[in-house]
Amino acid sequence: MGPHPAVAAIRLAVRRVLHDILTDHEALQTVGASRHTPHERPPSPLVLVACSGGADSMALASALAFEAPKLGIRAGGITVDHGLQAGSDLRADEVVLRLRELGLDPVEATAVTVGREGGPEAAARDARYAALDACAARHGAAAVLLGHTRDDQAETVLLGLARGSGIRSLSGMAAVSGADGRYRRPFLQLDRQTARKACMVQSLPVWDDPHNADPAYTRSRLRHEGLPALEKALGKGVVEALARTAQLSRDDADALDTWASQAEASVRDATGLLECAKLYALPPAVRRRVLRRAAIQAGAPAGSLFARHIEEVDRLITGWRGQGAINLPGKVVARRQGGRLVIRQG
Amino acid sequence: MGPHPAVAAIRLAVRRVLHDILTDHEALQTVGASRHTPHERPPSPLVLVACSGGADSMALASALAFEAPKLGIRAGGITVDHGLQAGSDLRADEVVLRLRELGLDPVEATAVTVGREGGPEAAARDARYAALDACAARHGAAAVLLGHTRDDQAETVLLGLARGSGIRSLSGMAAVSGADGRYRRPFLQLDRQTARKACMVQSLPVWDDPHNADPAYTRSRLRHEGLPALEKALGKGVVEALARTAQLSRDDADALDTWASQAEASVRDATGLLECAKLYALPPAVRRRVLRRAAIQAGAPAGSLFARHIEEVDRLITGWRGQGAINLPGKVVARRQGGRLVIRQG
Repeated sequence: MGPHPAVAAIRLAVRRVLHDILTDHEALQTVGASRHTPHERPPSPLVLVACSGGADSMALASALAFEAPKLGIRAGGITVDHGLQAGSDLRADEVVLRLRELGLDPVEATAVTVGREGGPEAAARDARYAALDACAARHGAAAVLLGHTRDDQAETVLLGLARGSGIRSLSGMAAVSGADGRYRRPFLQLDRQTARKACMVQSLPVWDDPHNADPAYTRSRLRHEGLPALEKALGKGVVEALARTAQLSRDDADALDTWASQAEASVRDATGLLECAKLYALPPAVRRRVLRRAAIQAGAPAGSLFARHIEEVDRLITGWRGQGAINLPGKVVARRQGGRLVIRQG
Repeated sequence: MGPHPAVAAIRLAVRRVLHDILTDHEALQTVGASRHTPHERPPSPLVLVACSGGADSMALASALAFEAPKLGIRAGGITVDHGLQAGSDLRADEVVLRLRELGLDPVEATAVTVGREGGPEAAARDARYAALDACAARHGAAAVLLGHTRDDQAETVLLGLARGSGIRSLSGMAAVSGADGRYRRPFLQLDRQTARKACMVQSLPVWDDPHNADPAYTRSRLRHEGLPALEKALGKGVVEALARTAQLSRDDADALDTWASQAEASVRDATGLLECAKLYALPPAVRRRVLRRAAIQAGAPAGSLFARHIEEVDRLITGWRGQGAINLPGKVVARRQGGRLVIRQG
């Protein structure tokens, strides 16, 4: 008798990602082969799971512990203590214990200090990834697995939608991200319910983060009120549709970025200034991306540069009636001069 | 003392669109000038408003009646009787009366028979546009104004999102659409509340279509439950963000369609077959659009061709392991043969 379907599903998802990691790792080993003597066996790669103790990442840890040895991969775990709740250190110790019980090694807890920049959710995320990065580097890990599910992806797409800043913000989380593709998300096509079920049938105790149900957090309101209401109005397929939108939007945004980067070289004159006539001839979607790139190159911080800024600069090209200079974030100024668009700081 | 801000807003929106219509109309007149004798004065253009009697289109009709004469434009109106409710013919007569009271001329009611194809909402829409098309042609109208607001646009984006079929379905309604850009939507950046307010302060009686509140309709559920819940979770800016997403997605989808149409020519061999190696080198977003175009050219009905179909064909290029032919809607078959992708019917 095979494993429960939910367990089979989480293991398959992890197995696929481990295969990818192994392929990438072996390619790297081949490149670096000259560094090993012929008889020295290359070390087997280490894959870490980032685990909060919640159902998604506990399911992920259990599947990693099961699949990694079969592929000659070492499996470890890390849990981050955000220090935001009383007793969070004790809970981190408990997660460490559970990961060890699954057979993972090395396993460690790391405590972080969460700042305030960008709001509580962004600050916690920044601190978490910094800790994961440091831990991965310390252990020489080939990859860090993250337990984000299709439901998390759907929420991320809706959060991006609320920004109204275009398809890049609709593209959610990538299956592979970070430096050298360090972070992998095996469960991005798997629903939260499957992860929870897999924990249940494997008798894995899980911890429900009270933050996930706290209506003070946007994501929590979205999860418990926004998405269910949307499902009620639009039907049960909404989560899947949002996740598919993320993938399609990501590919579209990548292609348009490629186009913009090629177009940018072709619209500059010999002195490197942008020629308005050539910009005008570009499709609006490409032109706006070229303008955004130029503003960032001139020193405008990407995070403060909104669609409305770019639209105003765009009107220097498409709606020219002698208007004055446009002020952009980071003290960057855009002006039209003699058929050229000049974007510079100060 | 000027008009109430809501009235000023609807008039400004209509004035802008009438200017555009006039510019386009004069360009057409110049092209066709040889058909008029030198002393014959070109007829002043006619603009019709499509009016249900609801707040959005009554506000639109009132602004058209006010602005058109100042620009030498004739203003008329049309109301469509869908015959879906008892007494709908009497109500259409009443709308005709109200439009005449606003000074519009010609004004007519037209009755349609709503079929069943594509569900009740799609069938009603198809019948309505067919009637509007016929009426516009009969009167030689330069344009037909539609009262869709920013709120309608936000709902349309969410309906597209629920399909999960990519950014084209996120691009909502166009400000200009139909044959020769016949349909114009002056209120696409205006919220529903402003239209309603404008009716109130002008003492225009409005009719609330009970369908708009009927939870049997997806759009109605979205309007009364889905969107309010999303606003509660994500903040009041959601409608504006969705409308902005529509515009950005439309431009992005247009640019990628242009790219795909250019790429398609470059990936065919001398006999017109698609070369797999060249397809492989395209960005995924462009390749999938080329594949979609090829499938439609081969006879697959666009409306039945889903993302999952195209993904399967794409795997013949990106995940080739000798798999068999892929069946597509419309009896179209895609297969890989000798490094070429063959997509044909039968």
